Amino acid sequence: MTAANDKIEARKLKGFQDYDPTHMALRYKIMDVMRAEATKAGFLPIGTPALEYADVLLGVGGETDKQVYRFMDNGKRDVALRFDLTLPFARFVAENHGTLPMPFKRLQIGDVWRAEKPQRGRYREFCQCDLDIIGVESIESDIEILLCLQNVVARLLDNKFTMYLGNRLLLSALITKCLGKMSPEHEATALIAIDKLDKIGGPAVVDLLQEQLGVAKTAGSNLIALLADQKAGDFAAIANHEDELVRNELQRLTETTNILNNCISNAGNCMGTAKVDLSIARGLGYYTGMVFETRIDAEPDFGSICSGGRYDHLVERFISKPFAGVGGSLGLDRLATYLLAKNTATNLATTVYIAIASEQERSMGFAVAQSLRHQGIATEIHLKLQKLGQQFKRANQLGCRFVITIGENERLSNTLSVKNMQTGAEIRDVKLADVTKHLH
Amino acid sequence: MTAANDKIEARKLKGFQDYDPTHMALRYKIMDVMRAEATKAGFLPIGTPALEYADVLLGVGGETDKQVYRFMDNGKRDVALRFDLTLPFARFVAENHGTLPMPFKRLQIGDVWRAEKPQRGRYREFCQCDLDIIGVESIESDIEILLCLQNVVARLLDNKFTMYLGNRLLLSALITKCLGKMSPEHEATALIAIDKLDKIGGPAVVDLLQEQLGVAKTAGSNLIALLADQKAGDFAAIANHEDELVRNELQRLTETTNILNNCISNAGNCMGTAKVDLSIARGLGYYTGMVFETRIDAEPDFGSICSGGRYDHLVERFISKPFAGVGGSLGLDRLATYLLAKNTATNLATTVYIAIASEQERSMGFAVAQSLRHQGIATEIHLKLQKLGQQFKRANQLGCRFVITIGENERLSNTLSVKNMQTGAEIRDVKLADVTKHLH
Repeated sequence: MTAANDKIEARKLKGFQDYDPTHMALRYKIMDVMRAEATKAGFLPIGTPALEYADVLLGVGGETDKQVYRFMDNGKRDVALRFDLTLPFARFVAENHGTLPMPFKRLQIGDVWRAEKPQRGRYREFCQCDLDIIGVESIESDIEILLCLQNVVARLLDNKFTMYLGNRLLLSALITKCLGKMSPEHEATALIAIDKLDKIGGPAVVDLLQEQLGVAKTAGSNLIALLADQKAGDFAAIANHEDELVRNELQRLTETTNILNNCISNAGNCMGTAKVDLSIARGLGYYTGMVFETRIDAEPDFGSICSGGRYDHLVERFISKPFAGVGGSLGLDRLATYLLAKNTATNLATTVYIAIASEQERSMGFAVAQSLRHQGIATEIHLKLQKLGQQFKRANQLGCRFVITIGENERLSNTLSVKNMQTGAEIRDVKLADVTKHLH
Repeated sequence: MTAANDKIEARKLKGFQDYDPTHMALRYKIMDVMRAEATKAGFLPIGTPALEYADVLLGVGGETDKQVYRFMDNGKRDVALRFDLTLPFARFVAENHGTLPMPFKRLQIGDVWRAEKPQRGRYREFCQCDLDIIGVESIESDIEILLCLQNVVARLLDNKFTMYLGNRLLLSALITKCLGKMSPEHEATALIAIDKLDKIGGPAVVDLLQEQLGVAKTAGSNLIALLADQKAGDFAAIANHEDELVRNELQRLTETTNILNNCISNAGNCMGTAKVDLSIARGLGYYTGMVFETRIDAEPDFGSICSGGRYDHLVERFISKPFAGVGGSLGLDRLATYLLAKNTATNLATTVYIAIASEQERSMGFAVAQSLRHQGIATEIHLKLQKLGQQFKRANQLGCRFVITIGENERLSNTLSVKNMQTGAEIRDVKLADVTKHLH
């Protein structure tokens, strides 16, 4: 087509990856479990575009504005690739709230893009699987999101895992208690520092708070100590808080945690637990109440595999109508990375491989393949005219359990030869109508 | 959060759409059928990024270069959103051919973007479901692609449909015969005009050929007449062509069509047929042999619902190694539009709705919901504390078949009340372990 020196270099963008069949089959498996569990809990699937007007996505605070893929399209519109599924969903609710059944429970699975610094297991394109409930303030909606995600993770992992539940209002109250009242900007900076607690440890967070906000080391250490108390189940520091809102949020958080654990222990053999941890802050700017992360117990450094929280004012970016909202997202790529490393591969081989001796048997070969497929039996057919030995070799490489051979004899007598590749036993003169009897 | 005059307008980009639950459920159904049929035929799933280096995608000819979303990313790379899945796949093959099992049969489902003029049923973002086989020149691979797509369409449609098989080489021979030898550029222009035959009719194509290429009306009309002959099964004009390649391609095309129809008639009740139609040209520049389109017989103006062809030199854009290739793509969005208009909606309601009388029953309500879900029964739970009458009303609106009520009595006796919403019959004092007996 072109001379050798005209070749285009076959390469991918930094931070982007292909998914080979093993990886992709695992991604589909995760999506299937997500869809099955969401459907069983009455979440309805929706889809929104990958591209949006930039102003729909930008300006919610947090670190995302800098990371967004933004450009002018051919019609000179200022557009951006979505960096999450929550802001497009808020736009969707603002446009459609009149016709949606409220409260609205939605499932959305889709790719998102962030121009972050690529790290191990973190890519610039990744898939989110989101559950959200719009229109409910009471904790039933928090519980419903957490339970459904818990069901998904429990089906996918053989490991014990913990959902850590925090709360932005309670964390804010603790910050005020220890560091004094802060401006929203300073508090946002403090949240981002505290969010790193798991990764960098208490002393490093104390240093960060001093560096970035001039917080005295004793005050910072005091905050870290209080956060540890909460995690251990001691809420004395805020249990009798003068603000009723804070007391209510604490009551909500403990009740949510208790109901989750009650459901889990009822179910018997479940691997998940729920725990309060007020140091959970989350990087995104739009959360207003409960926030959560989920970790595999044996892999504390692996990062969160599903997370989210309550965002009661997000739809108000668009319309002057209050919509309580809560949601959570399964990190499909992170989970897939974990499962791939554990080598839990799906068997992708078909059951049957059809070998044909010559062009004469082509038509019969395809007719047999189609007949088996229509009966639900996964069937490959050899695609090149080659010696039968090579066709058997290929069937073996792929891991097919049976090879059906069609040669001149079979064609003339309208029968098949069926070989069991595990036992080596071959049966001849099988009628097509009887072939499934020999495939187990 | 912000004052009313600070609101961001909730709107989508022109040519982009949201998918509501009915639409999205149908899209998932189509993808599921595609995956199931592809898996049964041994196609392996892969994934590639939405964004690529622009040079990987551009310059294959046809109309796509103008329609691509292209921009400079934050790292000043010239990037573009993929406009199909075939070019990224060619890049994938060039990068991975050493480790792929050859011949390689792949399935890929993903969104693509083209800044075309939006028309009814045509959007700037749409989903393609692609099957491709790399590494096989013989017609087995053409047949395999066509059969598998035929299986997919037959499962989704209740209508008779036809796969129209053309061939670029044969069409080129006909053009040369009627219009004289043309330069590749002029022939490409002629192909695009002929591709419109179904839409605008013969006389208009003759006019186009005259206008754009100065072709005499008699020559143009002659070509249109020959194309009609081929479609009617008369191949006299090329059957004894002096070029062996042309004679071979004709033989391949008729054998492919015969084997397809043989498989279809063997299967008994299938709705699909295969027919030769050399006027099929396809807009994309990379096809080299067989090309095809698929139409619903009763809706000739609806456009093609799946199409593709052979592209034997595409991987050579990247590496000096020949890879025969053939593929086809199901137009998921077009098919979904058709099925939605026919109102073939999936029932999205859960089977069971759980109504709870007060906060006291919350925990038991969720435990029951989880238990039913773990048994595979789709179950919703009311998410707001409201009067039971309102909870029943909601269950009714959603179309749930059973309502389980948990009030004080039920909580204290650890039993449930189960109401059949169709018959109105209610059974009380049901033990949780027995509840599934009452849900049919």
